[in-house]
Amino acid sequence: MCIFDLMEKILYFNNDTLIEMDKRYRANLINSVTGYKSANLLGTINSKGVENLAIFSSVTHLGSNPALLGFVMRPTTVERHTYRNIKDTSIFTVNHIHSGIIRSAHQTSARYDGDTSEFDKVGLEAVYKNEWKAPFVKEARIQIGCKYVNEYTIMENNTLLIVASIENIYLPDSVLQDDGWINLQETDGIAINGLDGYASPNIIERLMYAKPDTSPAPLS
Amino acid sequence: MCIFDLMEKILYFNNDTLIEMDKRYRANLINSVTGYKSANLLGTINSKGVENLAIFSSVTHLGSNPALLGFVMRPTTVERHTYRNIKDTSIFTVNHIHSGIIRSAHQTSARYDGDTSEFDKVGLEAVYKNEWKAPFVKEARIQIGCKYVNEYTIMENNTLLIVASIENIYLPDSVLQDDGWINLQETDGIAINGLDGYASPNIIERLMYAKPDTSPAPLS
Repeated sequence: MCIFDLMEKILYFNNDTLIEMDKRYRANLINSVTGYKSANLLGTINSKGVENLAIFSSVTHLGSNPALLGFVMRPTTVERHTYRNIKDTSIFTVNHIHSGIIRSAHQTSARYDGDTSEFDKVGLEAVYKNEWKAPFVKEARIQIGCKYVNEYTIMENNTLLIVASIENIYLPDSVLQDDGWINLQETDGIAINGLDGYASPNIIERLMYAKPDTSPAPLS
Repeated sequence: MCIFDLMEKILYFNNDTLIEMDKRYRANLINSVTGYKSANLLGTINSKGVENLAIFSSVTHLGSNPALLGFVMRPTTVERHTYRNIKDTSIFTVNHIHSGIIRSAHQTSARYDGDTSEFDKVGLEAVYKNEWKAPFVKEARIQIGCKYVNEYTIMENNTLLIVASIENIYLPDSVLQDDGWINLQETDGIAINGLDGYASPNIIERLMYAKPDTSPAPLS
């Protein structure tokens, strides 16, 4: 690590550099600089019965009690079908992307028109379970049914933070630990690096709840 | 994959099950069910010169133009020192966690009092660069200087979404690609699984911008 530090040329970007940057270059840089992101497909259906599927990298845990998640969207881009469907029906599904469906998942980001189901175009199968009226991705190993709760306009760039409640969860018995923790590696779950990079994480360790008077130890 | 589907017992949780769950079990479950999260240390300093360092898994890209990130916090918990310092000084740093500093990073989540610097307690070094008045983590390979822009109260659970502008970035030349994409694997960057799981991702591939009439292809 010392060798890394000593030998390595460190780049420095300030605000002026960022503003003057080529738009596409800056998008790649800023999308990867915050670290790895979650990788999910959001499934919705409109009032005419047309299904929609879209990849999102911004789905984030907001709280456990009540169980809430959030994600960020630009309602004016390709994601507008997802947004309109959620506003119309109040429900959607969140489906984890695993290493076997990366290319199909990525392809959902193409600008298909509103009458086209991405499920058909990218070769993933819509499935309905337990009367939940939004389509799950059959191939996904973790599936979540969500209900729209609220939205917050982030005035600084006109994006929306959508807040949703977690209403139901499907996951393989084998990946759930005794204390409720899900081993995402055992689902072959992936993480997103920037706009278009897909990565497969390997669990290094779980650590005990940290206390001021003890050093971190692996959870046995 | 067919064998996985056929052989596997699938668990189903609905809203009633989630509400009745043991609190700790639910926290583990809901914190891991949304997928992998980013892994960053936020560095701040208070008006008396006491530094603070805290681990966050909710730092998320909000937009590239202007360059914005967001993160979620509960101002009433251990994170309150971070919040108070950001409100006092308007600035903070975001420092990527890599595989060599996981235990130190995790230990910052212990409830140290407000006069204690987590840098000292966990064995990481504070460093100041280019007149930026918040401490960076010397050991981190990607360091971001941020300015507080706004906050949104998520009424549903009284958390805050903090919106900040990216003012400066330090990163190794070797991990930055010609198109602005950062190879996070080459920084040994990690992702977080749930509350306490740390994972090391390996890049599988980058894919071309998706268009309706073409199939996804690797970015050459």
